[in-house]
Amino acid sequence: MSKGLLIILSGPSGAGKGTVLKRVREKLPGLQVSVSATTRLPREGEENGVHYHFISRDDFERTIDQNGLLEYACYCDNYYGTLKAPVEQWREKGLDVVLEIEVQGAVKVLKQCPDAVSVFVTPPSLQELERRLINRRTETSEAVSKRLKQARAELSRIENYQYLVINDDIETAAGQIVSIIEAEKCRLSRNREFLGEMQV
Amino acid sequence: MSKGLLIILSGPSGAGKGTVLKRVREKLPGLQVSVSATTRLPREGEENGVHYHFISRDDFERTIDQNGLLEYACYCDNYYGTLKAPVEQWREKGLDVVLEIEVQGAVKVLKQCPDAVSVFVTPPSLQELERRLINRRTETSEAVSKRLKQARAELSRIENYQYLVINDDIETAAGQIVSIIEAEKCRLSRNREFLGEMQV
Repeated sequence: MSKGLLIILSGPSGAGKGTVLKRVREKLPGLQVSVSATTRLPREGEENGVHYHFISRDDFERTIDQNGLLEYACYCDNYYGTLKAPVEQWREKGLDVVLEIEVQGAVKVLKQCPDAVSVFVTPPSLQELERRLINRRTETSEAVSKRLKQARAELSRIENYQYLVINDDIETAAGQIVSIIEAEKCRLSRNREFLGEMQV
Repeated sequence: MSKGLLIILSGPSGAGKGTVLKRVREKLPGLQVSVSATTRLPREGEENGVHYHFISRDDFERTIDQNGLLEYACYCDNYYGTLKAPVEQWREKGLDVVLEIEVQGAVKVLKQCPDAVSVFVTPPSLQELERRLINRRTETSEAVSKRLKQARAELSRIENYQYLVINDDIETAAGQIVSIIEAEKCRLSRNREFLGEMQV
């Protein structure tokens, strides 16, 4: 059995990553989605193991020392990161794992796992991104400006990714991600075991 | 509009390339399949422009001199090759083009077109390949042995390919080729125009 894929999914807020990923999971029920670990306290409605793995600062720092994180960062005095163990356990069982992470994290994961598949989800244009952010009606115009600036910064680091998915239509975008996963499984480099059996 | 893909499809006789490609064309009606040029005479039932482009030795050699072939070879005193012009015209129109060629030809095309996508179609095992060749009942056991030897030789050059499609089931294999085509269209390097528009 081949090892499962590690799929990195990034893209600016408002690109629709979450909605697209939900549709991808409906098409590929075996797909695992990694849950980040954090030292910040749960907000109302957040469940441990669902929204985040809520762990203590001591535990987080011990895991850092044991090289137990695929990537981590510190925001506003709290740690956020991806635990290596569950990702590796899934992959060893042949299950594909998605990490929904930011560009900085993605670069760190790609260094540790050069066989990871990296996908950047983008809105069809910055104008459309702005429209989507305004339509949410939950953010001030200042917050929208900040998110647009962030989006530009993230787009400027897109060269770190192998694939680009333009989310104009959710169904199309989800289909493209499914195709990327299926195609990557056909890569020669991921089929060494079969080639060994064929005595190539 | 993006340029169409150039897809190289190879694999030993008996791997079922032809059947799988037929199914892929049903799924992707816009897909173009290149027809080889040859200087040999048409056999009964062979149509010009369908089975081959039948051209004179003079024309073929002139085309070689004009660098008008993506690849060519000489077998039994006859030339066989892939004309560059129709392939380029299709690709410029945004149409994807498949070349069903042998490993030697594939290596030549990949040198001229490093952006080509290369797919090797293989039977699930050499035993299965032998079984399929025997079941055809059109070949002597000597011919079957020769084909198996050829298959081993082709498999030994599989490292030149990016993707491996194991044809155990036609529908699955065709679906994998469609996924490879869709995924390759999402490659960052094939979306420079979009990134330009996004001002990345």
